[in-house]
Formats: sequence, structure tokens, C-alpha cells
Amino acid sequence: MKDETKRVDIIRVNREQVTEEEDIVVVEYPFTIFINDREIITLLCSPDSLKELVVGFLYSEGFISKLSDIDKITIDNDKGIAYVKVNNINEFNEKFRGKRTITSGCGKGSLFYNVLDSFRSKKIEKPLPIKADNIKHLMRLFNKRSELFLNTGGVHSCAMCDTNNIILFKEDIGRHNALDKIFGHALLEGIDTRDKIILTSGRISSEILIKTAKRQVPLIISRSAPTSLAVDMAKKLGITLVGFARGEKMNIYNNFPSIIF
Amino acid sequence: MKDETKRVDIIRVNREQVTEEEDIVVVEYPFTIFINDREIITLLCSPDSLKELVVGFLYSEGFISKLSDIDKITIDNDKGIAYVKVNNINEFNEKFRGKRTITSGCGKGSLFYNVLDSFRSKKIEKPLPIKADNIKHLMRLFNKRSELFLNTGGVHSCAMCDTNNIILFKEDIGRHNALDKIFGHALLEGIDTRDKIILTSGRISSEILIKTAKRQVPLIISRSAPTSLAVDMAKKLGITLVGFARGEKMNIYNNFPSIIF
Repeated sequence: MKDETKRVDIIRVNREQVTEEEDIVVVEYPFTIFINDREIITLLCSPDSLKELVVGFLYSEGFISKLSDIDKITIDNDKGIAYVKVNNINEFNEKFRGKRTITSGCGKGSLFYNVLDSFRSKKIEKPLPIKADNIKHLMRLFNKRSELFLNTGGVHSCAMCDTNNIILFKEDIGRHNALDKIFGHALLEGIDTRDKIILTSGRISSEILIKTAKRQVPLIISRSAPTSLAVDMAKKLGITLVGFARGEKMNIYNNFPSIIF
Repeated sequence: MKDETKRVDIIRVNREQVTEEEDIVVVEYPFTIFINDREIITLLCSPDSLKELVVGFLYSEGFISKLSDIDKITIDNDKGIAYVKVNNINEFNEKFRGKRTITSGCGKGSLFYNVLDSFRSKKIEKPLPIKADNIKHLMRLFNKRSELFLNTGGVHSCAMCDTNNIILFKEDIGRHNALDKIFGHALLEGIDTRDKIILTSGRISSEILIKTAKRQVPLIISRSAPTSLAVDMAKKLGITLVGFARGEKMNIYNNFPSIIF
């Protein structure tokens, strides 16, 4: 396991003084994924939950549609490489050829999949009833857990919850990676995502929304803002979308009868 | 010109009440770039300064190395498409074949270029002397200009400055897009970047640092945190790197004799 933070010497300036100090910065770890000996991508991530990241990423990007599509994952921590063997190599090659590159948002966006995929995603079948007070409670738990952010100011947090508790919690320098780690973990452990809630510290862009829609998650909540495209997609797909969930406040951008006051 | 924000109906919850209101969200605009009839990428961006974004992106990703490599840019605002004709199509095709995908960070990272490119970047030849007080002054100007963020909480800001003033200012839902817009504008206007300063609201990842290094910018300043890889690269390339520049405070992660107290 690699360290997620690193000590560096800095010059700290404030109103009164200029001092040389040690400070902590978050590690950015290049992590390359090979599938059946073909180099697919290099993710820049936090070096934690790498297996979960691989599985979540491959599912998000449509390289696999179930866990049994993966024959074997070998991770070389020192070199920052994951070797994945997937079953049914012909189908995989065909998928790979069809992919195109999309990029976005805060960082540079996702690749491979088509933004319009979302509109082919299935509508949420069963909304998840939850009290507004439970959302506030979950956000309090979520804020308490965001440790790496508190240390370095440089990461995003993501959690999967039921209506009362946090089930999974991950941090990463990338909000996409953090979410893929959550979904990878859920897939590896066989956790049903259709009655769960996603919490994220980061902005909800169309790409984040598509990832949750692919897992049929009925409710997504962010400390930050959604984009217009994410709001449109949430309405189309029946996903309850909450932004700026901070303390006693929240903005509900789409309530597909779900939140109870 | 498309609108950069959009009105939506929300349910606003706070301690005292639950109200239906109108709110503003930031627009996320899918923008596809074709080069010589080949589809290259779809950026998800704010629909402003699109020509600057195209030029900055193509330079960042190594598709062009000077403005005259571009023969013509046609932008269809309604369809969200840029048609670019570049000169010397053979060279372009060769470049395109060599590209691989890298992804990262906050969003999903950049494509195409290799993270190790940075270590092949040239060291900064001439550091830029600047007083710490001027940095505080620039950050005050920068914060005043961040309008879209104030309205929607959903965008990143980026500026190019000399030691006293902001020369260029751009906002985008993506911190990479905002920076590409700045550099695209500079390239279109023939602004020398080698004695300028970049200010950004977003985290400084390795990819952001590589983009500034490619333009030989000697000083980059962020309101947020840098990553370890960005700090390493800054030291290697002689780039002065400042993070957490807020009010009277800042952390200097690499001072390549440049900042004067």
C-alpha cells in the first residue's frame, strides 16, 4: 500500500510572518490499466482501493457488465499497473473499437462513453423514500469522515448509504475515481445499489449522474452544485437530486417523490 | 452565444422552512471538436470563448505547435461543434496515431498526452520576480472577478496576469477548460506567456502544471491545493508554485527565486 499523503517543505506566509515549515500534500498516483495485454488508460488517482477502482472504472466505461466478465486482476503497486484479464475477448475488442472520447467538467472528463448513453439508461423503477432529517444526518456523518480532505484540502469524498448509515466511504483526488471506487467495492461485495444513496463532495456533472444512473441509484446528494445537464438527466431518469447539502440547508433539484418533510 | 446559466425550479430547505423557488444552475454544454473531418473529442464545457477553448485544447494536447498550424476554425453554436482544418494533414495523422489516453484527477483527466511529457518539458529559463504583496493584490482582483461562481457555485476561474494586473480572465465548469481558454486566447492574440502568471481557483494537479509548463509560465498560483506530483514537477521544471492563496495567506511549495518578501 502506498501512502496517500506526502510531507513537503513549504514557505508559509501569513499577515504576521514568513516561516519555513513542513506540510502535507495529497499524493497523485499514475495508475495504468491493461486489459488482456492492451493498455487502456492511465488514471491519476489516490493510491488506495485500487482493485475497487479498476472494477468500478471498467463497469462505468462499459468494458464489463457484470463481475464474472473479469477473469483475473493483478495489481503491481510499485509500478502502478493493473493487469486485467476479461472473459470473451472478442466481445471486448468490439466494445473497445466502438468507444469514443468524451471529456469534461472539472477535470477533463471521461472518455469512451457517449454522453447520450444516459438517455438510453433505464428510468429508476423504485424511488427511495427518505426524510429530509435523515439526509441532514447522513451529511453530518459524511463530513466527519472526510479525513484526507481535512489534512490536505486536496481530495473528494464519496459515500454509499442506506437511509440511516454510511455503508461505504472512499476518498480520491478525483471525484470520478472516488465514485468508481464506491461502485467497484459494491460490485465486488455484491451490494445491491438500487436502494442506496450516493453522497459526494464534488459537483454533480452529467458524467457523475450517468455513473449513478447505470447502477440504478435513486438518490444522489452533493455538498456542491449540479450542472444544468445533470438536472435535465435526473428529471428524465427519475433520479432524486440534491445539491448544496450543508448543515440544515439543501436544494432539491429533482424530487421524484422521495424526500419527506 | 449560448447562455452560461439556466433557471430551474428547486425546493429550498433550511432550518425554518421548505419553499419552492427559482434558482440558477450552470450550463454544461457538450462541444465536439472535429479536425479535418475526424471526430476528436467532446468537451463538456461552459459555452463561452469556444474558439479560445479549441485553440488552447489543440495546443495543450499537442495537435498543433503554433497558431499557423490551423488553417480554419468554424464553430456551430447550435449544434455544439467546431470544425477545424489543420495544415499538414500527414503530420497530424501521425500525431493522432501516437496518442494514448490518460485520465485523472478531479474530473476524469486528460487524454492523449503522456504524463511523462512534463519531464521532457524545458525548464523555465527566466524566473519572474514578484513581491508577496503583489500576489495578494492579484488574488483580491481574481476573487472579485469570479462572477459565475458566485451565482451558481459551479465553475472554476482562471486568469493570466502580469505582476500588477489581470490581463485575461475565463470561467468554465472545468478547470482544464478554463485554463485552455486562457492559453487559447493568448495564442490567438500573440500574448507572450513566458513572463506571465497563472491564477486558478482549482487544484493544481500534474496535468494543470504540464499545461503551464508547455507555455513556459514561470509562476502558478491557486486558491486550492497542489498534488505531490505537481510539486515534484514544479521543482524539476523551475516553476514557482503557490497554493492556498487566500486573503493574507499563502503556501509556497516551490520558490524558484521569484517571490520577494
